[in-house]
Amino acid sequence: MNNDSRRARPVVLGQNQYGKAENRVVKITRDGDTHHIKDLNVSVALSGDLDDVHYSGSNANCLPTDTTKNTCFAFAKEYGIESAEQYGIHLARHFVDSQPSIHRARIRIEEYAWERITASDGNSQFIGADEVKHSFVRKGQETRVAQITYDGQNFEVLSGLKDLTVMNSTNSEFWGYIKDKYTTLKEDYDRILATSLSTWWRHNWTSDEQRMPNWEKSYEQAKKHILQAFVETYSLSLQQTLYQMGTRVLNNRGEIDEIRFSAPNKHHFRQDLSFCGLENEAKDGAVYYAADRPYGLIEATILREGTEARIPVDMTNL
Amino acid sequence: MNNDSRRARPVVLGQNQYGKAENRVVKITRDGDTHHIKDLNVSVALSGDLDDVHYSGSNANCLPTDTTKNTCFAFAKEYGIESAEQYGIHLARHFVDSQPSIHRARIRIEEYAWERITASDGNSQFIGADEVKHSFVRKGQETRVAQITYDGQNFEVLSGLKDLTVMNSTNSEFWGYIKDKYTTLKEDYDRILATSLSTWWRHNWTSDEQRMPNWEKSYEQAKKHILQAFVETYSLSLQQTLYQMGTRVLNNRGEIDEIRFSAPNKHHFRQDLSFCGLENEAKDGAVYYAADRPYGLIEATILREGTEARIPVDMTNL
Amino acid sequence: MNNDSRRARPVVLGQNQYGKAENRVVKITRDGDTHHIKDLNVSVALSGDLDDVHYSGSNANCLPTDTTKNTCFAFAKEYGIESAEQYGIHLARHFVDSQPSIHRARIRIEEYAWERITASDGNSQFIGADEVKHSFVRKGQETRVAQITYDGQNFEVLSGLKDLTVMNSTNSEFWGYIKDKYTTLKEDYDRILATSLSTWWRHNWTSDEQRMPNWEKSYEQAKKHILQAFVETYSLSLQQTLYQMGTRVLNNRGEIDEIRFSAPNKHHFRQDLSFCGLENEAKDGAVYYAADRPYGLIEATILREGTEARIPVDMTNL
Amino acid sequence: MNNDSRRARPVVLGQNQYGKAENRVVKITRDGDTHHIKDLNVSVALSGDLDDVHYSGSNANCLPTDTTKNTCFAFAKEYGIESAEQYGIHLARHFVDSQPSIHRARIRIEEYAWERITASDGNSQFIGADEVKHSFVRKGQETRVAQITYDGQNFEVLSGLKDLTVMNSTNSEFWGYIKDKYTTLKEDYDRILATSLSTWWRHNWTSDEQRMPNWEKSYEQAKKHILQAFVETYSLSLQQTLYQMGTRVLNNRGEIDEIRFSAPNKHHFRQDLSFCGLENEAKDGAVYYAADRPYGLIEATILREGTEARIPVDMTNL
Repeated sequence: MNNDSRRARPVVLGQNQYGKAENRVVKITRDGDTHHIKDLNVSVALSGDLDDVHYSGSNANCLPTDTTKNTCFAFAKEYGIESAEQYGIHLARHFVDSQPSIHRARIRIEEYAWERITASDGNSQFIGADEVKHSFVRKGQETRVAQITYDGQNFEVLSGLKDLTVMNSTNSEFWGYIKDKYTTLKEDYDRILATSLSTWWRHNWTSDEQRMPNWEKSYEQAKKHILQAFVETYSLSLQQTLYQMGTRVLNNRGEIDEIRFSAPNKHHFRQDLSFCGLENEAKDGAVYYAADRPYGLIEATILREGTEARIPVDMTNL
Repeated sequence: MNNDSRRARPVVLGQNQYGKAENRVVKITRDGDTHHIKDLNVSVALSGDLDDVHYSGSNANCLPTDTTKNTCFAFAKEYGIESAEQYGIHLARHFVDSQPSIHRARIRIEEYAWERITASDGNSQFIGADEVKHSFVRKGQETRVAQITYDGQNFEVLSGLKDLTVMNSTNSEFWGYIKDKYTTLKEDYDRILATSLSTWWRHNWTSDEQRMPNWEKSYEQAKKHILQAFVETYSLSLQQTLYQMGTRVLNNRGEIDEIRFSAPNKHHFRQDLSFCGLENEAKDGAVYYAADRPYGLIEATILREGTEARIPVDMTNL
Repeated sequence: MNNDSRRARPVVLGQNQYGKAENRVVKITRDGDTHHIKDLNVSVALSGDLDDVHYSGSNANCLPTDTTKNTCFAFAKEYGIESAEQYGIHLARHFVDSQPSIHRARIRIEEYAWERITASDGNSQFIGADEVKHSFVRKGQETRVAQITYDGQNFEVLSGLKDLTVMNSTNSEFWGYIKDKYTTLKEDYDRILATSLSTWWRHNWTSDEQRMPNWEKSYEQAKKHILQAFVETYSLSLQQTLYQMGTRVLNNRGEIDEIRFSAPNKHHFRQDLSFCGLENEAKDGAVYYAADRPYGLIEATILREGTEARIPVDMTNL
Repeated sequence: MNNDSRRARPVVLGQNQYGKAENRVVKITRDGDTHHIKDLNVSVALSGDLDDVHYSGSNANCLPTDTTKNTCFAFAKEYGIESAEQYGIHLARHFVDSQPSIHRARIRIEEYAWERITASDGNSQFIGADEVKHSFVRKGQETRVAQITYDGQNFEVLSGLKDLTVMNSTNSEFWGYIKDKYTTLKEDYDRILATSLSTWWRHNWTSDEQRMPNWEKSYEQAKKHILQAFVETYSLSLQQTLYQMGTRVLNNRGEIDEIRFSAPNKHHFRQDLSFCGLENEAKDGAVYYAADRPYGLIEATILREGTEARIPVDMTNL
């Protein structure tokens, strides 16, 4: 078929979705004088019977993105935010069940952690943490993420995190790889392994007929197993380290069936200081320069045998 | 099945890929005294027979990411960069065809445009563009993107752009939508429509047996049709505008079978100035505040009937 | 004096200022069917008789930052935005002249340029620019900046730009420098010179008794002279190029007395390709890698003899 | 004087400086199996007898920025990094004392904190912190900053931090302010006070004749006093809170004479939910939306009576 005949073929609408993205919902809960924070960034994406919005601009089936925003805030007040996942389930169900034209809702959430202010030196002169009831400092480490999708029948709940930057300053090697005419890399038997983890995992909970996981505990435990695998793995490749992380999570958390990692290899190159007569060996404690770009990017899915991989490759790609 | 029995099930490796990301390759071509620039950001992702890298850390099948970086630079010198697509095809083919363990290569490229320095006022006292042979200013408008995937048999070539920010200061309305108990939005018969376009389109060229498109011309024309549809569409919804853009591209460019848009609705809200007695109607020329977050996010695929949608939903999502 | 006696000395309030930062003011002007845009980011900083706000939290002398925001929007409507400088003069004068407790106002503005959509290939089938009356694309090149300060008697007007990225792909050398024991750099007789200019210049207009410059024309001309000096200078150091730029502006624009540049040397390093037997000489057209960090940072003030340097060193530092 | 006569006046070089910015120096120290990290971003700026570099491009007096980079890495190896300040003092002294043409050196440093990986739930099954000897997670809270300037005779040492985001969810009011015709803000007797602190403080140590402060302890204590003042201050204005922070630091740390704050008021607006019949009062625990722009920006210097304010106004401005 040549291009002219192709041009004659009709054009159709494919997958489409819309909604309000990045609603910055902050909920303070007061328990007497003691306050608690939930600090979320909530994005709504709705799909359904929306062809006319595209074809003619008729909005008769369109719930405005502004309304989806209002709903995010109203639900935080009306039902509270027990966890990002629970809140997202509530929202997704509402959009599909209340609007005939909406057949699928996807809620994506980022959660920012805050902790009570305490003295970093544990100085007892400082107001104790038990007395600091409404003063917080943003934790600033990883961002927790969640994605809840509902199609009117089943849910899919993904949880995860991004920007958790970790480093092993030893116990990492890289050697025995393919050498071709473009290879200049030297083998290394004692290198720094550092990465900024981005990861999503999929829960096997899909409907109210199952017992719902404790989302907060599940997150804490999954993160703990990822970190512990990072600590314990003597690494011959970043791929090996990721596989150990994923295996450890799945072996310990029955509620999770699949996990995907995207891990930039944040290169720390040993600086050559021979120009001024200095040795700079890893074994003696070395000076490294932390490079920005380019970086190795390692991505992998680990899943329970017999289950379907459902986390999109492009979801952790960026 | 309960969680304990799940935990007993073996864990397996799913989709995985690796490579060097964000190689900043700049190629100067000298045509006598006249220079030309290609300024690319190149990311390599390879897949194949890589289980052992994950399971045991054996790198026997692993071409180092550092080598993929070296190859990007060497190919730019050896073969030049005719277009991002042509260069990516060359690289993808090389990785798969030269390494038995590599079965699939994906090259992602961002391209930054430069233009020759000229006087913005067209002042003839200024050195004319024809005399400015090696002085450039970065254009700073959209970033052009391309993705080339090769599996040893066929290619898939996506082209596109991101961060092309456009505005219609009138000829946009939004009304007739669903109202529920959470709806507060007022209908608007003369609003600003602004968005920062991110779009990918898929070429139907897949192998050397077909005539290869002129990638540079194809990009220019696709962009032109997107802009022209934006100019010409009297818009009742951003979805309608995107659909017009996509339809126009497919109707005019036979080499393209599918296009996907991700378009944040960059809200410009008319500022209420009644507090100080000022009217602020669109028809008189109004003052708006440009909001950051939240924003409507509209995404859609438009494709030729009978073809398979292959651009991932999550590719334009972020 | 030891530290204990120091601790006994009273503590006092020094320089302080406050206001609403980053008000995103967009003004559409309609001239029949033809629309014009001014797209500004306006920051207000007020100083004056504000000790009690700090000492006791009494806000009796404090005009709320929210009010300064409202004023920015109201003035855009009431008086229009002829230029960023003119608008800032208007605002600064208002805050000081209308509030007895405010003795100094500083208005900082970023301006984003938009241009009418036209076909990039000059294709006449495309709707002509003269017919495109309300469709714009963000230019995305440099950001124009202005700062207006008023103390009740005199104005100080700084104008400038940031993020104007320019490159000379030849006619740049670097050699003849100091060599010490830490020096490894090779001399280079044909290198790329690229920088992302940030610059502020100071007008000698300070009060209504002088004829006010044409701010729009002054900006265009200053930018033109900076670019032309960049094109024309055969460079032996980036410092030399900056000095030529500054000199050219001052020699041609009598309304400007001082200019300061901050110019990161955006290194483009010639990639060594000897590992695979390729030469990569500048004279043949070479492949470079564009480095992110570290970068040389060159900063300089050029001013008219006998005038006082008033642009802060730290203003262009970041 | 008219502009033509101004143009006739000679142009001269004013303040100038140069050096390599953003050297990412990472030093691992091994104490047996236990490793320690210092992770710095180091920027060098040198001034001196550099007129010819600007006038003619002669680099005879110019130590290349590349050499300043090499020196940063070599010094980290040769002398270690006891603290950012100590390391910066060493570098600044070296550049001025070793190069006749360099009369002043300014070293700016950002420091990123890492902590040993531990289980966030204190689970004892997790490898104990005392056993985790070379595994780290980036802390991700504030960035510590330092600036050391040396002119051949005296040092000036500034320390500080940025991006420390804190929130009081109550004990903040704002009322009693000026109302003019542009004022619409409602008084608030129970609001959230949140800010992202950027602050610099100046030590009174200036030469080896004085006892050098313990820079690490000084930093920890200054930060502690800032946080404690934030916790303890019942706030009627953000200015009052900053003044309390500054006063507390100066009253408790004799080695510090001056401190400057730049504090964006990170607005958390109570969402009006009356549209769906919900009350949303602060006293009941409310839902807020966290706004991006615009934001109040409050800046102030607090200093010891009789000392000279030396921290530039523009240093914390951006």
